[in-house]
Amino acid sequence: MTRVFISLQGSWMWGPNGHGAILLVNCDSEHTYGKRRDSESAEVTRVSDTFDHHYKKVFTAAENLFYKSFVKDYPLVLGSEDLSKEVPYLGGNAEMKFYVEGLRFPDKDFEGLISISLSLLEPSSQGFPETPIFTDRVVFRVAPWIMTPNTLNPVEVFICSTSDNYQFLKGMKRLVENNGYKLKVCHEYMNRGDRWMQDEIEFGYIDSPHQHFPVVLDSPRDGQLQDFPYDVLLGPDFGYVTRTAYNEEVSSLDSFGNLEVSPPVIVNGTIYPLGRIIIGVAFPTATKGRNMTKVVQDFLWAQKVQEPIALFSDWLLVGHVDEFMTFVPAPDKKGFRLLLASPDAGYKLFRGLQKDGHGQAKMFDGRPSVRDEILSDDKLRAENNYVQSCIDWNRDVLKRELGLDDDDIIDLPILFHVMENRAVAYYPDMVNMIVLGKNLGIPKPFGPKVDGRCALEAEMTSLMEGLGLSCTYIDDFASYHKLLGEVHCGSNVRREPFSFKWWNLEM
Amino acid sequence: MTRVFISLQGSWMWGPNGHGAILLVNCDSEHTYGKRRDSESAEVTRVSDTFDHHYKKVFTAAENLFYKSFVKDYPLVLGSEDLSKEVPYLGGNAEMKFYVEGLRFPDKDFEGLISISLSLLEPSSQGFPETPIFTDRVVFRVAPWIMTPNTLNPVEVFICSTSDNYQFLKGMKRLVENNGYKLKVCHEYMNRGDRWMQDEIEFGYIDSPHQHFPVVLDSPRDGQLQDFPYDVLLGPDFGYVTRTAYNEEVSSLDSFGNLEVSPPVIVNGTIYPLGRIIIGVAFPTATKGRNMTKVVQDFLWAQKVQEPIALFSDWLLVGHVDEFMTFVPAPDKKGFRLLLASPDAGYKLFRGLQKDGHGQAKMFDGRPSVRDEILSDDKLRAENNYVQSCIDWNRDVLKRELGLDDDDIIDLPILFHVMENRAVAYYPDMVNMIVLGKNLGIPKPFGPKVDGRCALEAEMTSLMEGLGLSCTYIDDFASYHKLLGEVHCGSNVRREPFSFKWWNLEM
Repeated sequence: MTRVFISLQGSWMWGPNGHGAILLVNCDSEHTYGKRRDSESAEVTRVSDTFDHHYKKVFTAAENLFYKSFVKDYPLVLGSEDLSKEVPYLGGNAEMKFYVEGLRFPDKDFEGLISISLSLLEPSSQGFPETPIFTDRVVFRVAPWIMTPNTLNPVEVFICSTSDNYQFLKGMKRLVENNGYKLKVCHEYMNRGDRWMQDEIEFGYIDSPHQHFPVVLDSPRDGQLQDFPYDVLLGPDFGYVTRTAYNEEVSSLDSFGNLEVSPPVIVNGTIYPLGRIIIGVAFPTATKGRNMTKVVQDFLWAQKVQEPIALFSDWLLVGHVDEFMTFVPAPDKKGFRLLLASPDAGYKLFRGLQKDGHGQAKMFDGRPSVRDEILSDDKLRAENNYVQSCIDWNRDVLKRELGLDDDDIIDLPILFHVMENRAVAYYPDMVNMIVLGKNLGIPKPFGPKVDGRCALEAEMTSLMEGLGLSCTYIDDFASYHKLLGEVHCGSNVRREPFSFKWWNLEM
Repeated sequence: MTRVFISLQGSWMWGPNGHGAILLVNCDSEHTYGKRRDSESAEVTRVSDTFDHHYKKVFTAAENLFYKSFVKDYPLVLGSEDLSKEVPYLGGNAEMKFYVEGLRFPDKDFEGLISISLSLLEPSSQGFPETPIFTDRVVFRVAPWIMTPNTLNPVEVFICSTSDNYQFLKGMKRLVENNGYKLKVCHEYMNRGDRWMQDEIEFGYIDSPHQHFPVVLDSPRDGQLQDFPYDVLLGPDFGYVTRTAYNEEVSSLDSFGNLEVSPPVIVNGTIYPLGRIIIGVAFPTATKGRNMTKVVQDFLWAQKVQEPIALFSDWLLVGHVDEFMTFVPAPDKKGFRLLLASPDAGYKLFRGLQKDGHGQAKMFDGRPSVRDEILSDDKLRAENNYVQSCIDWNRDVLKRELGLDDDDIIDLPILFHVMENRAVAYYPDMVNMIVLGKNLGIPKPFGPKVDGRCALEAEMTSLMEGLGLSCTYIDDFASYHKLLGEVHCGSNVRREPFSFKWWNLEM
């Protein structure tokens, strides 16, 4: 009996003792120019590995099945049009190589498993149908899209250049390049004035035993930056994926400042070695509030390996989780701290200043003063009570879903005010920072000066110093803060992938 | 802070160390008369358990959320119309009980997990939106529908009474009642001449820590027996579920003689403590052949706990897996044997008869004779070679997918012949038996008589005796065999559930 096919695992199991082949979605482009518009369509030339070898994990870049014939390179054998097909059997010792190509990421309607069977049929004798002599099956799992938390090493930092952000650009350039990272500036002809680099895209990657490459998730936000990920980022070994909200309204919550990921955590014995995705939604106060579109949420949940957590962010005018939280690396405990904006910590600091005789100290180098315009403003206090209660609810959820203790959280002195029932930062929102290894790029808060030094910066620096982190304050006041965003909103970081391999997860 | 809600597990994990609440689909009926037509719709009065207790596993019979108010019993709080709702907070120590009702089984578009969150909202102060003070979440998994293999103890045997099956009925009655089981006869006013009790329904059950009950899966076959499962079986603590093939053709492969389940097996280290479902399809010879409808296949795969195996059954005219295979209990090895129809074993037996001088022995008490009409018939031999090659393919798949050795399989001497390119049993198909503990009800084969004893019965009895099984041969010749079915096709067995609990599966 001649077998066409050497046996691979006919099933797929998670974990270090698991098995099964892995397939990368062919979502990059072979060329920098003349890219294919549909990012998830086939590109035959990307097929890389055959499955006629013995691998514990077999990996190849492909869901279409091709085989190499003498007539034509890689004719399509199976695809959505043909779920089964006969190919000529060459007989004897002739070798047929089949190639598989992944076309889609896991999603609500696709678990990510692809099963391909190959049968050798033989006419048993004249007048009878052909009978199967041998069937082999191989099951591939399409590699999920994986996000990278702040604790991973940066590779490149992306920011926009606009007509009015020279000051910011200069500060960022110094921070990034002094620390040995690469700065990539998206110029105005491409960004068309859209400076919110965080919001249009999220960097992630896909991984297999023999290859990994970055994949940018393009937000349905589609601001003026919308062509950037496709036109600039997509390329050889740089993948692109997007989700289109056909029948849904796209809101500010679809910006990817509202899509973050925690460092690795252990929660009640459940290990998340790739961390957990964090998004902001309207829950729990109303389903009628703003939400991240269902297509993007479905995509994120379907990747499975970084089980998402939904926070309440609709209380914010802009509505992004990066307005009240971030993660920084730490040398102790769980390897990181969760930083939370805290009006209570803000009031405590301002009351301390007043007590120490600095009530006349003024913010923004002029107005308001700590005593007269902050501590005496009952409306502002009420607004911040409301904000604190919203953040407290998220704090509880984060503690529970990430398995954190109070010691794992640092409260940053940040005040908000409430406009049209929703909150915005009162002064530059320090938690909205960029994290580059041990170096933090923090929105310069322009706080009350005590002995010539900004009391907010002093407090912030002191809190971070304890973790071995160094703070650089970036002036984003005019060109970002006043437009309701900060350093994090205006930047993006591509990071190294996890050393942990997703297929070793116990699911 | 007053909490409305005592905390339950906000996540669900499989396995003996797992956790999470379990929900039974409310698929039975409170009443024997005036049943609700939609088996998966809500029946408020079935709600049984509240989730304000501490359970490791919480179980309740319900996806709608109700609560008990003073105004009206069980007003609907959440359902497909309202995914979120506010309910009045009673304050203080007042207790609110919420009740949940499961409405749907897991399926292609529903993994089976239901997450319900409850938040206590509080107006923070005048002029601000309400803020959430506390949120609790409970995750339920809807219990899967579970099939019962031949190795489980029988409870009731179902057969049809027709105008022409008195002989069969008598034989079955004796077999069933002598062995202490209950026989339930479906009479002609209900079966309207449809005798294929195996094909219209499949018995299974649903299980939770505090309750389990049988659930009949009604086939889209919908022969004259179609009202039987709903009208007769559905009742208090007897559930009903069906799948309707709206846009698909229903074929003979949709009959549940084509839906079986193996005993528990271990396959390359993977444990299937509830066995694996087995269905027959056209694969691997053609996708254009007959198949089980997608809606039923999707349902079966979605239950997850008895991962299905697809066999090749389209080579049979009727096309059911029970025409060539069954499982019987065994005292040794894996606790069971796989019985396979085997033309090769048949020819071996017939050749032995001839060699021993019984070439003139005749089947069916007259014609054909072993020598002249069986062994000399080249066309019959070619037909059986074809059949053997089809069964061999399935044998390979069963060995691989159930982790079986050749020692775990017994080949039964059964010949087929081929009509219109598809196979039917030549004489009563002994593998198509009913298994009641250690007692087998086997189609009487009417084989060649040697010393007054049927050589096929003798061989069969000898093969089964070695396993401590006792054979009763049931004459189904005129009323079943000639209509292309046998004992198994004409009967059904409701069995005891597994003692193994599905939520203890490691997935």
